[in-house]
Amino acid sequence: MSGSSYGTIFKITTWGESHGAALGMVIDGCPAGLNLTEEDVQAYLNRRRPGYSQFSTPRKESDTVEILSGIFNGKTTGTPISMLVRNTSERSGDYSDIAEYYRPGHADYTFDQKYGFRDYRGGGRSSGRETIGRVAAGAVAAKILKELGITFTTYVSSIGDISIKRELFDASYIQKNELNMPDPESYQAAAEYLSDVMAENDSIGSSVECAVHGVPAGLGEPVFDKLDACLAKAIMSIGAVKAVEIGDGTEVSKHKGSYNNDAFQSTNGIITKATNHSGGILGGISDGSDILLRAHFKATPSIASRQQTVKQSGEQIDIHIRGRHDPIIGPRAVVVVESMAAITLLDMLLQNMSARLDKIKTFYQR
Amino acid sequence: MSGSSYGTIFKITTWGESHGAALGMVIDGCPAGLNLTEEDVQAYLNRRRPGYSQFSTPRKESDTVEILSGIFNGKTTGTPISMLVRNTSERSGDYSDIAEYYRPGHADYTFDQKYGFRDYRGGGRSSGRETIGRVAAGAVAAKILKELGITFTTYVSSIGDISIKRELFDASYIQKNELNMPDPESYQAAAEYLSDVMAENDSIGSSVECAVHGVPAGLGEPVFDKLDACLAKAIMSIGAVKAVEIGDGTEVSKHKGSYNNDAFQSTNGIITKATNHSGGILGGISDGSDILLRAHFKATPSIASRQQTVKQSGEQIDIHIRGRHDPIIGPRAVVVVESMAAITLLDMLLQNMSARLDKIKTFYQR
Amino acid sequence: MSGSSYGTIFKITTWGESHGAALGMVIDGCPAGLNLTEEDVQAYLNRRRPGYSQFSTPRKESDTVEILSGIFNGKTTGTPISMLVRNTSERSGDYSDIAEYYRPGHADYTFDQKYGFRDYRGGGRSSGRETIGRVAAGAVAAKILKELGITFTTYVSSIGDISIKRELFDASYIQKNELNMPDPESYQAAAEYLSDVMAENDSIGSSVECAVHGVPAGLGEPVFDKLDACLAKAIMSIGAVKAVEIGDGTEVSKHKGSYNNDAFQSTNGIITKATNHSGGILGGISDGSDILLRAHFKATPSIASRQQTVKQSGEQIDIHIRGRHDPIIGPRAVVVVESMAAITLLDMLLQNMSARLDKIKTFYQR
Amino acid sequence: MSGSSYGTIFKITTWGESHGAALGMVIDGCPAGLNLTEEDVQAYLNRRRPGYSQFSTPRKESDTVEILSGIFNGKTTGTPISMLVRNTSERSGDYSDIAEYYRPGHADYTFDQKYGFRDYRGGGRSSGRETIGRVAAGAVAAKILKELGITFTTYVSSIGDISIKRELFDASYIQKNELNMPDPESYQAAAEYLSDVMAENDSIGSSVECAVHGVPAGLGEPVFDKLDACLAKAIMSIGAVKAVEIGDGTEVSKHKGSYNNDAFQSTNGIITKATNHSGGILGGISDGSDILLRAHFKATPSIASRQQTVKQSGEQIDIHIRGRHDPIIGPRAVVVVESMAAITLLDMLLQNMSARLDKIKTFYQR
Repeated sequence: MSGSSYGTIFKITTWGESHGAALGMVIDGCPAGLNLTEEDVQAYLNRRRPGYSQFSTPRKESDTVEILSGIFNGKTTGTPISMLVRNTSERSGDYSDIAEYYRPGHADYTFDQKYGFRDYRGGGRSSGRETIGRVAAGAVAAKILKELGITFTTYVSSIGDISIKRELFDASYIQKNELNMPDPESYQAAAEYLSDVMAENDSIGSSVECAVHGVPAGLGEPVFDKLDACLAKAIMSIGAVKAVEIGDGTEVSKHKGSYNNDAFQSTNGIITKATNHSGGILGGISDGSDILLRAHFKATPSIASRQQTVKQSGEQIDIHIRGRHDPIIGPRAVVVVESMAAITLLDMLLQNMSARLDKIKTFYQR
Repeated sequence: MSGSSYGTIFKITTWGESHGAALGMVIDGCPAGLNLTEEDVQAYLNRRRPGYSQFSTPRKESDTVEILSGIFNGKTTGTPISMLVRNTSERSGDYSDIAEYYRPGHADYTFDQKYGFRDYRGGGRSSGRETIGRVAAGAVAAKILKELGITFTTYVSSIGDISIKRELFDASYIQKNELNMPDPESYQAAAEYLSDVMAENDSIGSSVECAVHGVPAGLGEPVFDKLDACLAKAIMSIGAVKAVEIGDGTEVSKHKGSYNNDAFQSTNGIITKATNHSGGILGGISDGSDILLRAHFKATPSIASRQQTVKQSGEQIDIHIRGRHDPIIGPRAVVVVESMAAITLLDMLLQNMSARLDKIKTFYQR
Repeated sequence: MSGSSYGTIFKITTWGESHGAALGMVIDGCPAGLNLTEEDVQAYLNRRRPGYSQFSTPRKESDTVEILSGIFNGKTTGTPISMLVRNTSERSGDYSDIAEYYRPGHADYTFDQKYGFRDYRGGGRSSGRETIGRVAAGAVAAKILKELGITFTTYVSSIGDISIKRELFDASYIQKNELNMPDPESYQAAAEYLSDVMAENDSIGSSVECAVHGVPAGLGEPVFDKLDACLAKAIMSIGAVKAVEIGDGTEVSKHKGSYNNDAFQSTNGIITKATNHSGGILGGISDGSDILLRAHFKATPSIASRQQTVKQSGEQIDIHIRGRHDPIIGPRAVVVVESMAAITLLDMLLQNMSARLDKIKTFYQR
Repeated sequence: MSGSSYGTIFKITTWGESHGAALGMVIDGCPAGLNLTEEDVQAYLNRRRPGYSQFSTPRKESDTVEILSGIFNGKTTGTPISMLVRNTSERSGDYSDIAEYYRPGHADYTFDQKYGFRDYRGGGRSSGRETIGRVAAGAVAAKILKELGITFTTYVSSIGDISIKRELFDASYIQKNELNMPDPESYQAAAEYLSDVMAENDSIGSSVECAVHGVPAGLGEPVFDKLDACLAKAIMSIGAVKAVEIGDGTEVSKHKGSYNNDAFQSTNGIITKATNHSGGILGGISDGSDILLRAHFKATPSIASRQQTVKQSGEQIDIHIRGRHDPIIGPRAVVVVESMAAITLLDMLLQNMSARLDKIKTFYQR
């Protein structure tokens, strides 16, 4: 129970270190009968792949996925799907310096405190490469959800003080720009700003928004496994996330009930809401509106400018972290946020199947 | 699995509806040997008790706890601790109107969609009274943590646009004012504002902050069960919470790495951090600094001013929700936030005991 | 995690000690819409109630159940069902002697070793009264299964060396005799034998068989959560059970494949098996035949004849356990075996709903 | 949740099909600091390897393990350990015949009923090769237990009607004979009998016993997670096991309390038991004596003699299963039984660390 499994019915277990032989993942509980190929998964992995943007590390990684089990004649069989991405020879080098000291903002110190020592090569298990397993699983979950009519729009919503212009929102633009922002104006402004930050040997924070369309009402369990609670865990478990908002998020603490309540309305017998401050969730259960969530990512902690820290011995030193690091986390994390949301929603959707006796009877009627 | 259990080693299961016979809770996995009395638990329950403030519902509830199992000769035995709070005769009345329509901002519609019908009396399971079980468990968890040197400071940090004055922070003042704010100036301003809101038949949002002191470094599991991820779920699972922040929270997306990274420093061989933007958690593992978190509560959805909604039949109607409702959730939720944080931290602390073989050997040495 | 919860989707948590205020149970994950009354549960509890047979303890207990939550207008709501049985004033007395020494065959010594001390009153949590929670949950699970066409036949299959006569098997006789055996001849023989055992101040072992009818093929998960593996845990977790058999059970180790394999056959397009050595389970998954299992109960460890044991201090002593103890466990455990089988089967049935994508699509089609 | 994970703290997830690319396993929750090499694991895998005995399939498989994560500088890091065994080119061939019909005693029919279709190549996930993951995990668990003073003796205890001679028991002989029996006389008799069975194109059942030495008192949780209940699930989840016995097992139902109770005795202040009918477990908790369990394996269902079965279409046919099949399961399953017992015991040992507040305080004292 080192916390590498996630989910109840659609359950994933990820493994692997930044500079080990490989990283990978097992899905247990994937329904049988889904058409699934390595290409389906590779398409998602490519969305987080480094080396293809001026705003990400120039370190090129092919991150080629291999599916080792759980598929027969092109379909999932219901048994565990094991996937593996080999680390390539690029991933090597001299880590003797970071072996000795604790990088600020990283998990070096805390891993040492917990386990007594750590795999210091490139962050080991706490590296961003850990998300490869999440994204591979997310590709599968999203494909199932798509067959059920559930889709995602996920994008960078702010970089530093630059926020997207909602009046210019264009979903089709998101995957066309290196920052995965939904409008050209914000992209331009952010790209210029980011170049300045990089020139300063610094990094910058960002936020990512995810909207889920087509979610049926009724998903999520009351009390502890509320849909929003599960999404909060899923998203906060992504490295560098420090805040999660649902619907209006932090704004709700400033507003009155008369503003925040979404009025129900009815058109041709179909009940909808006039607004969606709730972000599609009421009492922890989906209300049929779009699910809306936002994640706030801190700036990449690895920066080349001077920082103060200590060695394991306690000696105080100044460091400059060399190497090829992303100056921002959000753009490559868009697909990670989407993946965690997809895995969570699919799991809640499967859990919900046992909520009503009448539906169970129909399911099993002979 | 209707989501009423929480925790892995220290595991709680809550039950009960707003207007049923009783509400209660079972703790499974409480370590043996803790001195525990009903008074310990009652003290926590009293902190969420209604009817004792001009800013809460005037409905008086004694909420007297009865411990039914798991204690022998004043000590926990290691077996399940079952606790029960009877609903009193005050909890009755005519609910025929809310049986028919869907209250905006409440879970009426979503419960109906999930289960086909609902216990409409006072919100049933989605009522704020559901938190009685959380608080009873929190009292036990906090008592254990206190014996291990871990304590809490929890308070209302904002009401509408009124934020606390951090330069006047006085922890001893928190439980001395009806709004559980940590300074008299903010309390005065908020009290006046709240009176206005109540006069408008409206309600208002609020935020609650929790600081945890004395947490040893090393708690939390990498990847999915990060300490912050688990706290995010714990806090977001409280009704009406729409955002959770750790450390600098949403602010991190605006800041640079050079600002956000906390420098490590060493004094007499003891490693500490110069700042605490991380809120005491790095890579999902506690770093020995205070754990800092913030929850944002929406305004109470039950308001007496006119709202538009629909009946189950689809008919559109206007409603005024009568009755005795809290105009704000934060003040009574302070102890709920603290309880969920305590339960989560204790569980992670127990999980962490199996992290290292050398410590396991010491534990079992014969 | 003191092990008081069982199940994944239909999850129960039991609590309570033999001589505490009460014993009880919470079901989380009961589907909504089941008609359920206290009478439904009481009927099951009465099947394990003591004091109504010459072959059980003369201690009369009404064991009256109270349902505290999860029911509205006579139907389950999908939220936790909390049930409670108060211990009556009969349950008191002087336990100072058993506080000091370790009763052979009981859990006194092991509880002390695990927890440092124990609730010694009547066995505390390790008492047979712990099964009250199992049976209350079993009543609910069995009622749901019955609506799905799944029923049980459970009975005592042997007492000491006296086995039932299968050629005289009469299901209707089981609940008509105090030993819950399925034929009058075996009952007569066993009753006489048991009288002799009681006269010797001794107790005797027994076995219980359970057949489950109408189970659809396909329940159970490959590998670790095989249906038979889950049933084995369920049954072995009942106090005093020391062996669990599925189908031919221990006999399989003596037989050849040509004997043990059940031939498939087809009649009017319906596939059945010519024999049922497998006990209705192949590869951990139900095959559509009756599920057959057998539990072996040791003799009641509390006996009045002289036994050698030690005090906590290590002092060796001889004891005679006085009091009103059952001379045999099987007859009162029949309903416990049935309950654990019912809970397990229902849980696997609910888990199985997410096995196939085509069925999930049908379930959610809009 | 297709049931491929096992354990709570020391948690394993296995994956892979008989004729897929590979089989493997992930351990999550392995304590940090264990010296571990591929040789440690290979030694266990070799104990189940086929092709090296006249009494197992002549199909040679090297079953070479590769560790992909979780080890750094020769030690476990506390992060997931991923292991993989590639299936070799030997594993291919024509399975078109078994694709069409249901082999008696196999999971062909039940997989089809559950999932709608199946990977029919060599049994797919229901193949005995699935146990590779269990044994790899067992090697790790057993190595940890050994460092804590806990060891195993596991052997074939009967084949058909031939039982071992306990008076000749020689633990050192077990791994010296192809049938893993503990005395030469039984081995000789069984070897001759097995040759006859093979000549008849038939197969035979067997039983396996496992004794665990050095288990501290106090492991196991009361009620549902009793140590014996968890062991029963662990062992029954091994393919072809149809009965599990603890201590005296099925014999207990025939005996009286005066015989079955183990008297406590004290020597130099150390409390022991005069006998061990309980198999080292009382009330679900280890009592400090050897843990004793027995598993009954059915005969290999694949036999070359004529069998009656049906095609998916319902057509009745006669079949002869050709190929290289083990005539008996027990000898190769000895290490599987030992592995499942080791994994279970280690998990319970880790769970037990949170049982007492005084020990938790000592663990965390600063």
